[in-house]
Amino acid sequence: MPPPSLNKVIHFGPYVVTHQVFYQTPLTFCLVNLKPLLPGHILVCPVRRVPHITSLRPAEITDLFTTVQRVSRTLKRVYKAPALNIAVQDGPAAGQSVPHVHAHVIPRCEGDMEERGGGDKLYEELEGEEGDVGEHLRQAEGREKSGGRGRFPKVKDEERKPRSAEEMRKEAEWLAEEMRRDEEAGVYDREEEP
Amino acid sequence: MPPPSLNKVIHFGPYVVTHQVFYQTPLTFCLVNLKPLLPGHILVCPVRRVPHITSLRPAEITDLFTTVQRVSRTLKRVYKAPALNIAVQDGPAAGQSVPHVHAHVIPRCEGDMEERGGGDKLYEELEGEEGDVGEHLRQAEGREKSGGRGRFPKVKDEERKPRSAEEMRKEAEWLAEEMRRDEEAGVYDREEEP
Repeated sequence: MPPPSLNKVIHFGPYVVTHQVFYQTPLTFCLVNLKPLLPGHILVCPVRRVPHITSLRPAEITDLFTTVQRVSRTLKRVYKAPALNIAVQDGPAAGQSVPHVHAHVIPRCEGDMEERGGGDKLYEELEGEEGDVGEHLRQAEGREKSGGRGRFPKVKDEERKPRSAEEMRKEAEWLAEEMRRDEEAGVYDREEEP
Repeated sequence: MPPPSLNKVIHFGPYVVTHQVFYQTPLTFCLVNLKPLLPGHILVCPVRRVPHITSLRPAEITDLFTTVQRVSRTLKRVYKAPALNIAVQDGPAAGQSVPHVHAHVIPRCEGDMEERGGGDKLYEELEGEEGDVGEHLRQAEGREKSGGRGRFPKVKDEERKPRSAEEMRKEAEWLAEEMRRDEEAGVYDREEEP
């Protein structure tokens, strides 16, 4: 069975992200990042391209966050992460860089941001250029650097290389396999112990 | 009709927050903050006290984010905010300070964080002591300062006064009224234009 990511062209805002997608439902897809802030930092998006979470229909919002739950369980397992940050930047004034709803899901381990200045730095980087997924995708497509969203500090973005298409495809295939494993084992159908 | 917040005792983790609650469903409630990071910064919680989003049942996760959508529409209207940050710190390693699922919903306007150092500061404060709702609630209950979550920088928390119970109750009543208005006008039943 080919990974769901190979079935058809998938758009994240104006960008084609087909080979970054590792999980799909009729209403939602999950993709790996060009420049993850931490290992396992992925995005969950509705298939319909709307910028605001308030525009999602009941079935869409339900499916989006049920998918966040599923991917969270698999990410926690494969990254041995006891915690996660889940964040939606809903509109440009909130730091949104691609006008298509997306929930960042970031596995967290105790002390994982210590050498970068503490856990708060994650958020700084999320709002800063490092988390500007739009800018990354523009650059990956060979478009000119837009100058970013301007008002946020540059966070040593130049030190971090965008990952190759091949690297992302491999990660997407690996995560697709891990999610299939959890799905087949019925993990998503069982309630997690609090 | 009394505001829903007056019906019965409501717990957020170990804390009684009954008079901070401004919206309730059988599975979810919304409360105003002791120290909002920006005007309109509220929390949305499941009634059932579990720490992880992955432990929520399908009806609970659906209702939680349907409620986030509803409150988002009302917050955008009353705070004239074109954007929102929605953030869940799922587990202590992700900055969670009260072991009870809660989604922060923070209305955002262009330039609203300029004088505090830019939009990234919001997140820094969210992970820092300012966003440590557990610490705030402990202090409000007259318990000793715990020393905070330790590894995050202090962000001039001392300059910001916790709000009085009366102030929070008034805000909760006002927001309850505004949400009733939207509910009665059918706003939540209509799809928002993208």
